[in-house]
Amino acid sequence: MAAAAAAPAESYVVVHNVAKRHNVGTLARSATAFGVKEVIVVGRRDFNSFGSHGSTSHLSFRHFSSLPLARSFLKEKGCDICGVEIREGAVDVCRQPFQRSTAFLVGNEGTGLSEKECEICDFFVYIPQYGSGTASLNVTVAASIVLHHFAVWAGFPERIRDGNKFVVAEKPLKQTRQTYCRETVEAVIEERKSRKNNASEPFEDNGNGDSSSNVLDALFIEE
Amino acid sequence: MAAAAAAPAESYVVVHNVAKRHNVGTLARSATAFGVKEVIVVGRRDFNSFGSHGSTSHLSFRHFSSLPLARSFLKEKGCDICGVEIREGAVDVCRQPFQRSTAFLVGNEGTGLSEKECEICDFFVYIPQYGSGTASLNVTVAASIVLHHFAVWAGFPERIRDGNKFVVAEKPLKQTRQTYCRETVEAVIEERKSRKNNASEPFEDNGNGDSSSNVLDALFIEE
Repeated sequence: MAAAAAAPAESYVVVHNVAKRHNVGTLARSATAFGVKEVIVVGRRDFNSFGSHGSTSHLSFRHFSSLPLARSFLKEKGCDICGVEIREGAVDVCRQPFQRSTAFLVGNEGTGLSEKECEICDFFVYIPQYGSGTASLNVTVAASIVLHHFAVWAGFPERIRDGNKFVVAEKPLKQTRQTYCRETVEAVIEERKSRKNNASEPFEDNGNGDSSSNVLDALFIEE
Repeated sequence: MAAAAAAPAESYVVVHNVAKRHNVGTLARSATAFGVKEVIVVGRRDFNSFGSHGSTSHLSFRHFSSLPLARSFLKEKGCDICGVEIREGAVDVCRQPFQRSTAFLVGNEGTGLSEKECEICDFFVYIPQYGSGTASLNVTVAASIVLHHFAVWAGFPERIRDGNKFVVAEKPLKQTRQTYCRETVEAVIEERKSRKNNASEPFEDNGNGDSSSNVLDALFIEE
């Protein structure tokens, strides 16, 4: 495909009701590795950062209560919305079918993208498989491969290395708590405990549906 | 890079003392998705298949007690051995620096590849990163991206799909237990329990160092 456009392209990840907390943490780690600008959390947001290796403090998160609100925000940013899903018409990700800033929507581990999720997508990519032993990849693995291809297509500058590791920036100073949540961290943890038996219930935002913070990870606890 | 050679290239994964069982299961799922011929287990082999989504029954496993024995086997197969590691001289995996059948050695989650592990490698690949928030990727994510690139380079035929999933083959009939282990499954499970407090101790094979089976998953239990 063509090289990236003159205006630098950016990537976003949209997480909607991903069920396994471990997957969200590992996804956050890949998102920061592959230069994702923001993680857009839609619906429930009470998962924690297990598996993120501290990456969440370097990521910006933004929350919307519904998929159409998330889509409106992304469209204002000039983004395409790309569903990561095996389906009719989905393009092999190796073809890097990107044109501009793109938000990648990943589906639930069990069921993939729902019809409602597909409705907000402009196009779809899938990752070719070759063996006969599994119907699909782990959701975090699939998202990581797609983010990797986008970063290569967009020509992001590679991070400097020190020996066998990429250099991690200083953790951003904790800012005073923003308006992300009215709840205290303790209240959120309490709420999580009480909802343990009802894990699939989406989190309903009582605010205006858009809340942004790079200190969302104050709401994330290590398991 | 050049197209695959006339003789079809094959991929192997070498797992040596990977500590987190969840990672081994997800790695098995990616391995079967990306057409890996065999998973070579070196050292301990008492992890289970959590995260594999049943993929282990479609994968062939082979066990060696030491890295040099694994290398000898792979060299007889005409394989290159490629370490997946960020290090001086490692090649960007996007360049697909493959020439023939290749075995991919992944390091422990905490420490990456040890010097002993590096010694059996012919070359190294790494996955470029772009963000400042993490020093490295999850080991399964890294291995999956490398296996994906190898499959594309080798030109593996894509698996047929049915709707939104790749078609999973019938589970192979359980064969009568082979010579993989002298122990019974129950004995292995008992041994695992007793070693829970000593998880980093490598499993020492008492046999000739090479044992092959596609029913290794009889030793894997779901968590």
